[in-house]
Amino acid sequence: MIVVLKPNPNKEQLESLLNWLQDKGIQIHTSIGMSQTILGLVGETSSLDTDLIAALDIVEDVKRVQEPYKNANRKFHPEDTVITVGNTQIGGGTLTLMAGPCSVETEAQIIEVAKDVKASGATMLRGGAFKPRTSPYSFQGLGADGIELLKLAKQETGLPIVTEIMDASQLPLFKDVDVIQVGARNMQNFNLLKVLGAQEKPVMIKRGMSSTYEEWLMSAEYVMSKGNENVILCERGIRSFETYTRNTLDLAAIPVLRKLTHLPIIIDPSHATGKSFLVAPLAMSAVAGGADGLLIEVHNDPEHALCDGPQSLRPEAFDKLAHKLLSLHAFLKTQEA
Amino acid sequence: MIVVLKPNPNKEQLESLLNWLQDKGIQIHTSIGMSQTILGLVGETSSLDTDLIAALDIVEDVKRVQEPYKNANRKFHPEDTVITVGNTQIGGGTLTLMAGPCSVETEAQIIEVAKDVKASGATMLRGGAFKPRTSPYSFQGLGADGIELLKLAKQETGLPIVTEIMDASQLPLFKDVDVIQVGARNMQNFNLLKVLGAQEKPVMIKRGMSSTYEEWLMSAEYVMSKGNENVILCERGIRSFETYTRNTLDLAAIPVLRKLTHLPIIIDPSHATGKSFLVAPLAMSAVAGGADGLLIEVHNDPEHALCDGPQSLRPEAFDKLAHKLLSLHAFLKTQEA
Amino acid sequence: MIVVLKPNPNKEQLESLLNWLQDKGIQIHTSIGMSQTILGLVGETSSLDTDLIAALDIVEDVKRVQEPYKNANRKFHPEDTVITVGNTQIGGGTLTLMAGPCSVETEAQIIEVAKDVKASGATMLRGGAFKPRTSPYSFQGLGADGIELLKLAKQETGLPIVTEIMDASQLPLFKDVDVIQVGARNMQNFNLLKVLGAQEKPVMIKRGMSSTYEEWLMSAEYVMSKGNENVILCERGIRSFETYTRNTLDLAAIPVLRKLTHLPIIIDPSHATGKSFLVAPLAMSAVAGGADGLLIEVHNDPEHALCDGPQSLRPEAFDKLAHKLLSLHAFLKTQEA
Amino acid sequence: MIVVLKPNPNKEQLESLLNWLQDKGIQIHTSIGMSQTILGLVGETSSLDTDLIAALDIVEDVKRVQEPYKNANRKFHPEDTVITVGNTQIGGGTLTLMAGPCSVETEAQIIEVAKDVKASGATMLRGGAFKPRTSPYSFQGLGADGIELLKLAKQETGLPIVTEIMDASQLPLFKDVDVIQVGARNMQNFNLLKVLGAQEKPVMIKRGMSSTYEEWLMSAEYVMSKGNENVILCERGIRSFETYTRNTLDLAAIPVLRKLTHLPIIIDPSHATGKSFLVAPLAMSAVAGGADGLLIEVHNDPEHALCDGPQSLRPEAFDKLAHKLLSLHAFLKTQEA
Repeated sequence: MIVVLKPNPNKEQLESLLNWLQDKGIQIHTSIGMSQTILGLVGETSSLDTDLIAALDIVEDVKRVQEPYKNANRKFHPEDTVITVGNTQIGGGTLTLMAGPCSVETEAQIIEVAKDVKASGATMLRGGAFKPRTSPYSFQGLGADGIELLKLAKQETGLPIVTEIMDASQLPLFKDVDVIQVGARNMQNFNLLKVLGAQEKPVMIKRGMSSTYEEWLMSAEYVMSKGNENVILCERGIRSFETYTRNTLDLAAIPVLRKLTHLPIIIDPSHATGKSFLVAPLAMSAVAGGADGLLIEVHNDPEHALCDGPQSLRPEAFDKLAHKLLSLHAFLKTQEA
Repeated sequence: MIVVLKPNPNKEQLESLLNWLQDKGIQIHTSIGMSQTILGLVGETSSLDTDLIAALDIVEDVKRVQEPYKNANRKFHPEDTVITVGNTQIGGGTLTLMAGPCSVETEAQIIEVAKDVKASGATMLRGGAFKPRTSPYSFQGLGADGIELLKLAKQETGLPIVTEIMDASQLPLFKDVDVIQVGARNMQNFNLLKVLGAQEKPVMIKRGMSSTYEEWLMSAEYVMSKGNENVILCERGIRSFETYTRNTLDLAAIPVLRKLTHLPIIIDPSHATGKSFLVAPLAMSAVAGGADGLLIEVHNDPEHALCDGPQSLRPEAFDKLAHKLLSLHAFLKTQEA
Repeated sequence: MIVVLKPNPNKEQLESLLNWLQDKGIQIHTSIGMSQTILGLVGETSSLDTDLIAALDIVEDVKRVQEPYKNANRKFHPEDTVITVGNTQIGGGTLTLMAGPCSVETEAQIIEVAKDVKASGATMLRGGAFKPRTSPYSFQGLGADGIELLKLAKQETGLPIVTEIMDASQLPLFKDVDVIQVGARNMQNFNLLKVLGAQEKPVMIKRGMSSTYEEWLMSAEYVMSKGNENVILCERGIRSFETYTRNTLDLAAIPVLRKLTHLPIIIDPSHATGKSFLVAPLAMSAVAGGADGLLIEVHNDPEHALCDGPQSLRPEAFDKLAHKLLSLHAFLKTQEA
Repeated sequence: MIVVLKPNPNKEQLESLLNWLQDKGIQIHTSIGMSQTILGLVGETSSLDTDLIAALDIVEDVKRVQEPYKNANRKFHPEDTVITVGNTQIGGGTLTLMAGPCSVETEAQIIEVAKDVKASGATMLRGGAFKPRTSPYSFQGLGADGIELLKLAKQETGLPIVTEIMDASQLPLFKDVDVIQVGARNMQNFNLLKVLGAQEKPVMIKRGMSSTYEEWLMSAEYVMSKGNENVILCERGIRSFETYTRNTLDLAAIPVLRKLTHLPIIIDPSHATGKSFLVAPLAMSAVAGGADGLLIEVHNDPEHALCDGPQSLRPEAFDKLAHKLLSLHAFLKTQEA
C-alpha cells in the first residue's frame, strides 16, 4: 500500500500514523521528495482500511497495490476451480451450456424446453422461479411452485438446475436446486451472500450492472470467506451510455478474471443484449475468448413468454447454436495441443 | 404506447395481436406508411408488458408514452407529499437536515454528535448500524447494538433517527427508528421493498448507482403499491467514468423528480463525492436547486472513524455549513414571495 | 416519426403544426386517447428536425422510428460493401489483419515490423505518424517524416498502409496512404469528415469514446453524403466505469452494425484494453463474432516504444496469434457451408 | 511517481531501469516487501512517460502522484486567473452571464436577443455561427455570415461575443470575436488547441462528453503551453446512462476545478440538460456552488429555432432568471464577509 502525504505534514500526526502502522506489524519505507513524501507500506496490508488512512489530515492519497481479496485470488490459489454438479463439471476446460426459459411458466413448458435443450447438448437447465422485475405490476415468477416445476424437469431429464434466489428467507426452497444464482441487482446484497457462504451449494454470482471486476470478486469473497468455495462468476453486461442493446457485454471479463481468479466464468449473452439476433454471435465470441460456459435463454414460445421474451431463442435456433458452439469448442481444443 | 411493426407483417399474427389488445380494452389507432406501420395504443396501457409485445415476430419496436408508475406519479397526485417525523416535517417547503456519523461507534460518540448537530440546526440524526461494505473484512457496523445507541441519542436530544436496513429480517429491530433507509445497493431488492411497503414507517430510498429516474420511481412504486405512501427519495451520486469523485452527484434529479413525482427529495453530498471539501459547495447547490433536505456525514473524530472517514465533516465545519444552508434557504423563501 | 402531444394542446398551435407537416408532404395519423394524443408521421421524415418539433409548446415528446442515416443504411443498400486496397480486400468474408506499431519511430523499426507482420499473415501495415496525445508534453509523432517512413515500408513489403489524420490541413501528405484513419477523438470533427468525404481514399472511422452506434453511423454518413462510399468502421472500446481496462471493448458492435449497415467492421483490441495479455483472447472473440478484420499493435521493442507500449505485442506473439486467427477464420468458413 | 514491480524482477532489467531513471535526475526510494517491491520516484517526474515504464516486463503498475499539468495547476499559480473581455471580467468574484441563441439565424433575431439579454443583465452575447451537428442533413450554421451578424449585435449593444470555432482554418474569421469557444466534440482536437494557444484571444474549452477533469485540464494545458494563458473552462454535462436529460450536469466540477486550477469556471445548463424547465434550477445550483458564470441559451422564438430549441429560454424567462441569479450572487457575497 502506498500513502502519499500532503506537503509539510504535521510532525506529531505523522509520528502517530507511523506508530500505529508499526504496531500492526507493517514495514514502512519512506521516500522524501521536494514536494511530496511517499510511504511504501509492506506486510499484511489487506487488513488496513484505506478509508481510515485517507481520512487523516496529513494524507493526500492512498493507493492499494495488492488485491483486497484472498480466497478468490489466483495468486494464492493458482489452480482453476472445477465445480462438479450432478454428472457435469463447470470449469476445467469443459463447456457448460445452461439453457432454459427466463421464467418457469407451466409444467408442459419447462419439461418440453428441458428435453429440447438436453437433446441439443445443454448440460444444465436454467429457469426463473423468483423474478426480479423493475415494476411491481409485472409478473413476479411462480415462486415456490416454479421450483417444484424445475424439479419435475430435472427428474424427467437428469439435467441439474440453476435458478435465482432473491432473499435469504427463500433458501429452504432451494434444497433440490443444484446451483443457486445471485442476480445482478443482488450482487451486493451482503446479507444474502453471507447466508450463501454458510451453506454448501455452488453459487453463481452475476455481475452487478455497474460493478467493477474488483467489487465482483469481493462479492465472491463474501461467500468464500464464510466457507463456501464453490463460486461461479457470470458476466451479463454492464450499463453504459449505449441504449441499442439492453446492456454492454464486457467480454474482456473472461481473460481479466482468468488472470485475477481461479473461479469459473460463465457468459450470459441473452440478458446482456436483450435481443435474440445478438445471442448467437456473442455466444461464439465468448467461447473463442475462453469462457467456461454460457447461460442462454430458450423458450418454446417466446411470443407468449411471461417475461423477457425479446432475447429468447426458440429451441430450433438453440439447437443450431449449441452445435456451432460445441464444434468451435472442440476445434479450439485441437489448436491448444 | 406505440408499437412499430416490421415491414409487411404477417396478417394472421397482426390480427391476433389486435384481438388480444382489444380484449384488454385498448383502443388502437393504425398509421400505415410506405415503409412502416405504427399502432397507437390508447387506454390502460400501464398494465401491458412491453417486453411481451416486443417479443412478437411482427414487431420492430415498442415505445411507452405514459410513465409506468402511478402512485408515485405527480400527474395523479399533484400536491407535494409532506411527511411528518416526530416534530419535524420533510417536504412542503421545509429544509430537512439529516446529520450524523457514517457509522454509530460508541455511546459517547453518537450522543456527542447528536447534541452538536442539533445545536447547529439539524432536524434529524443519521447513523449507520448495519453497514453495507464492499469487503467482508471491513467493519460491518454494530448492528442491533448500534440501533440501541441511536435510540439513546434520540432520547437525549429529541432528534428523530434515520438508519439503514439491509435485510427484511432486521425489521423488528427498527421499531423505534423514525425513517428506514434503503441503501443504493438495495434499491432493487424487491423483497425488501415489498416488506417495507407493508409497514407504516417512512422509507427513504437511495438511488442505485446506475439506476435511471424511472427505475428509482418504480422502486418507490413497489413500496407505495403495498400501501405505504411515505416514501422519500435520496440522490447520492451515480457511477460515471470520472474517478476523482467517488460518484457523480446528479443535481438535475431535483427538478426532474419535482416534475415527475410528488415525493420529497433529499441530497447526500457526502457519499456522492467521498471528499469532505466538496460537501459544502454541493450542499449549497442542492438547496439553491430546490432540494427538500440534505443528508450529511458529521463525525467528531473523522480521523478515527471506523468507516468512510474522508468525506465526513467535523462538527465545527457542519455548524458553519448549516448556518449557510439555513440562511440561503431563508433568502430563497423571500425571493419566491 | 411519432409526436406525443401534451394534454389539451392549444388548437391553433396544433393546426399550425399539422399544416406545416402537410406542406412537407408528411401524412399524419392521429390517435386521440383520454390523456394523450399521438401523431403518427409517415413519409420522408428523415428530413424533419426532431429538435424543432420537440421545442413546440404543445409537444411532450418526439420519437424517431426510422434511422436518420441513408447511405450507410443496410435497408437501402443490402449488399456488403467490399473495399479493395492494393491487392487486398476489406469486407466480403475476408479477414483483414492490420498490424504495426502505435507510432512510427525509425526506418529500421518500421521496416522490420512490416516484414515481420507480413510474414505472419498481416494484410496491411498500420503505424502512427500524427499522434493524438492527452498531454502536450508527450511524444506527438514524427508527422510528415513518419509518413515517409511508412511509404518506405510499403515499398519494401508491398503492404498497403493505414495511418491517422488529425487535421484536414494534413491531407496533402496522405497521397500515398491507402486508408486514412480518423481517430476516436475526431469522430465528430465534422469539418474533417466533410473533407474526407470529398476525396477518394477509403476512410476508417474509429468509434468515439462515448459515441452511440447511431452517432458513429452518422459520422460515416457525413463522409458518404459527400460522395465517398468507402468507409470502414473500427470499434476500439468505449468508456465505462471500469478502469482495469483502458476502455470496454463492445463486441456486440459487430452483429449490431452488421444488421444496421453494409460497411466493413474492424476491431481494435489493443487500444481497447491497453494491456497486451488481453489482445489475443479478444481478437479471437472478434473473429468468432464475425468481424471483418483486426487492428493490432505490434512492436519489435515494446519496452522502448515511444508511446502506448503496454498493449503492444512482440512480433513472435503476433505471429502465434495471427496463425490462430487465420485458422479460426478458416474453420468458421467450413462451418458456414 | 510510484512504480510497483512484479514479484522477482529480472535483475538486469531492473538495473537498466534504475540507471535510466537516474540519468534523468530522478531520485529512487525502494521499498522491498515480501511479495512486492515498490519504487518511489521523486524529482521532475512530469516529464516521464508512464506508458513507457508500464510497458516494461518487470513492472506491474505505475501510479502518478503529481498532476501532469503545470500551467493550469493551482499549486504553481495560486491566484485566480481573471480574464478581461471588453469592459467585463470573467473570474475574480464576478458573475458572468453569457446568453443568446444556440444559432445565429437573422440580423433581426440576433440584435433583438442581444438587446433583450443585455437589458436583463447579461455580460456577454453567445451565438453559434459554425454548428457541430450529429447529422450532415441538419442545419450547419450560417458560418462566416453568422459571425458578421454577431458583430452587428456587438456594435449595437456593446456586449462582447463568444462563439464556437470548429476548425483551425476558420481562425481568420474570428478577428472580432472576444472569446473563442472550443466545443465538447473538439476538446481533444489537439491541432486546434495548439493553434489557439499560439494566438491571444481568450479560449473557452467545453468539457468533452466523456472527459475526466484531468483530461480537460490537459486540454487547457495544450493551449497554455503554447503561450496563451487566457483559458476558461465550461462544464456542459457528461454522458451517463441516464437518458431523461441529454447529459448529466456535473456540478462537483466547480469545487473540484477550484481546487485543482486557477482558471475560471462557467456552467452551461442548457446543453447539459436539453430541457428548458431544468435550466433555471440548475443555474441557481451553479451560482450557489461557486461558478464564475453561466452560458444560457435564449431565443426570441424557440419554437422556430433552427437548432436545439427544446432547451432555449424565451427572453422573458431569461429576464426572470437573470434577476434571481444576480440576487443570489449578491446575497452570497454578503455571506462571505
